[in-house]
Order: sequence, then C-alpha cells, then structure tokens
Amino acid sequence: MTTLYGYFRSSAAYRVRIALNLKDLEYDQVPVNLVKGEQRSETFRAHNPQGLVPALVTDDGTTLTQSLAICEYLEELHPSPSLLPLEPAERARVRALAQLVASEIHPLNNLRVLKYLVHELKVDDEAKLAWYRHWVTTGFDALEAMLSREAGSGDCCHGDTPTLADVCLVPQVFNAERFECDLTPYPRIRRIVANCRALPAFQRAAPSEQPDAS
Amino acid sequence: MTTLYGYFRSSAAYRVRIALNLKDLEYDQVPVNLVKGEQRSETFRAHNPQGLVPALVTDDGTTLTQSLAICEYLEELHPSPSLLPLEPAERARVRALAQLVASEIHPLNNLRVLKYLVHELKVDDEAKLAWYRHWVTTGFDALEAMLSREAGSGDCCHGDTPTLADVCLVPQVFNAERFECDLTPYPRIRRIVANCRALPAFQRAAPSEQPDAS
Repeated sequence: MTTLYGYFRSSAAYRVRIALNLKDLEYDQVPVNLVKGEQRSETFRAHNPQGLVPALVTDDGTTLTQSLAICEYLEELHPSPSLLPLEPAERARVRALAQLVASEIHPLNNLRVLKYLVHELKVDDEAKLAWYRHWVTTGFDALEAMLSREAGSGDCCHGDTPTLADVCLVPQVFNAERFECDLTPYPRIRRIVANCRALPAFQRAAPSEQPDAS
Repeated sequence: MTTLYGYFRSSAAYRVRIALNLKDLEYDQVPVNLVKGEQRSETFRAHNPQGLVPALVTDDGTTLTQSLAICEYLEELHPSPSLLPLEPAERARVRALAQLVASEIHPLNNLRVLKYLVHELKVDDEAKLAWYRHWVTTGFDALEAMLSREAGSGDCCHGDTPTLADVCLVPQVFNAERFECDLTPYPRIRRIVANCRALPAFQRAAPSEQPDAS
C-alpha cells in the first residue's frame, strides 16, 4: 500500500492528496505534526533527509519527496485521468502556473519561514502578516493576469478539468484564506477554485477531512 | 529563432541556459536588468506578467515562463541528450533534487526577497547574510545527505551525465559562492559541481560569459 507522510495543513501534502484522489489511488496516511517538529525527528528523516512533508512511500518501499516530483510520478504511472495536457506548450503552461505557486508564493510563506521571521528577525505579528500577504498578492496578481488573458484557461486553470496547476492553486488559496488575504481582486482565481472545490477529489483532500485535523 | 529573456546573474535564467546548451539548441538573448528593475517594465510584462526572468519565446512566438517548466518543455521537444532518466522512480528522484533547490533554497534568497528584508523589514547586512546562509545550509545539508546515501548518485547528481538536478544545482552553488557560504561541509556537492563545470555546456552558460555580464 502507498503511504503518504503528511500534515493536514501542509499545502504541499494537500497537493499530493488531491493528485492521488483525482487518480483514484488508495493510500494510507501517516501524520507528521509540523507544529510539534516531528518532521525533524530521526524516524522521519530516515524517510526524508529534507525534514519536509510530503513523502510518499510506494508499494515497493521507495520514498519519493517534493510534491511536484511526486505528482509527475503519479502522472507517469497512472496517466488517466491526466493532470497535464498532451501538447508540449500547453504542458509548459500548466507547469508554469504550478511553479508560480510552488516556487514563488508558497516557499516564502510556509511555517519554517514564518518561524524564522519571528524568532530570528524578531518581526512582530503585523509585519509577519504583511510579509505573508505581500507574496500572496505579488503571486496572485501575476496568476490572475495569466488566467485572464491566456486562451488556455477554462473552468479550471487550463481547460475545464483539473491539472497540476489546480492541484497547487487550491491549497494556496486555502492557505491565503487562513491568513485572511483579500481575494476580491482575483475573480478568476476564485471562480476556478470554487469549481475545483465542488469536486469530490478536492473535497476529500481538504485539511478538515484528514485524520490529524484539529 | 528562440529568444531567452534573462539576466546574467539570475539562477533561474542560468538553469535555462545550461539546458539549452546541453541540448545544443541555438538561442538569442535579450538581457533584462533586474537591478535596474527592467523586469517590472510594461514591455517585459507583456511577455511575462510575473515580471520574472527567464521567459523563453519560441520560434512560433509562444512565451514560456518558469525555468523548470521551460526545461521540461525542452526535454519533451528535444529528448536527446536527456535531462531525465527513463524510469519513473528515477525521474522522480531527479525532479525532487531539482525542486529542493528551486522551491526550498532559491525562492528565499533571490533579489526581490533580499530587497524586502532590507527595505521593508529594515534588516541589517549581517542579518541578511545570516538569512541567506541559513537557507543554503538547510537545503544543502539535505541535498548532501541525499546525494551521499542514495544509490542513484554518480559523477553527477543522478548517474554520470547531467540531469535537471545538476541544471539547478550549479547555479545555486554559484550563487552561494557569491554570498561566501562555507561549502566545506558538502564534499559531494562540490565534486558534482566541479564535474559539471568541466563541461562546455555549463561553461558557456556561466554568468561571466553572458552579453550583459558586468
């Protein structure tokens, strides 16, 4: 059985849950409590020296890390339903939208970075929130522009069925809502996320539905 | 002709130059001076609303963004020499090593983030350097552990020929050297980077060799 090491609120683990669900794959979950620092334990680092979730342990015991690498692996092994279009330039568009979230927004706003701001740089709550919102705004401004003006967009980020881009966008919006970012300037993003959230694969992947939700 | 919008010192543009060179593809370069803020100009944003380099404009006028998405596109259109192994779990390993650099280290240390630290959070030079080195150390500790203990590693990050992982690692090490990070704890990383730097594709991609180098 495939085992997902994750945490209910981790955006990156949430991405992998969505991908697994969209492909209708069964998996066990092992929660790693990031707030308690369990990702730094010897036991977990034996699976993933990065000390990061998610890690996916496959049937044959191979450990895979980094959410986008895991999603590409799932796509290669279980190509249907597909998370990427067929045509190379369209695949590049989907991957760029995914990377815009995964490389430009999320890395700046995850728990370990916010902790560094507070503990090492002695940043107060207000400045921490401003930091968080600044990177969401910068990234979502670009994403909204791309989704609005590029012909590929549909009910989802690319076309009318979920791709890797939606797999990344939905957890990022969940996260932005937690930090009370103003999403009114992003009607296209909001519409796409609402469409995705209506799908069972996204619903079952939601943080509130996980065994470690609190 | 393919046109690369980049900046000689940008890690992400450097990655794409290496990939283009490894695949022996010809391209024009249009420099976008990040220090002067040219990436925020109307002209450049018409190509890429993200206001980020690199952007690759293909023969038929399609603009591609996000370095890893561009590299995957080049891989799909020009599969030989390959930047990814054939077997899905090995491809996942290479992509995870690439993402470890591209999502966990580089986004925290690029110019716009360092500027935010200085201008908005009023962080002094020493604390800025400590921030930079903290994320390099965290990332390289994990990378060194993976490269040392995993069977896939060779003269390069995976096997003995360059992959997407080396395409990301070499620019990150260049960057770390610029900020005088101590790389003595990372013998495996240093050996791999030395091997890559001996190859013409990497040499021609180096920042010092670009038309806008200063």
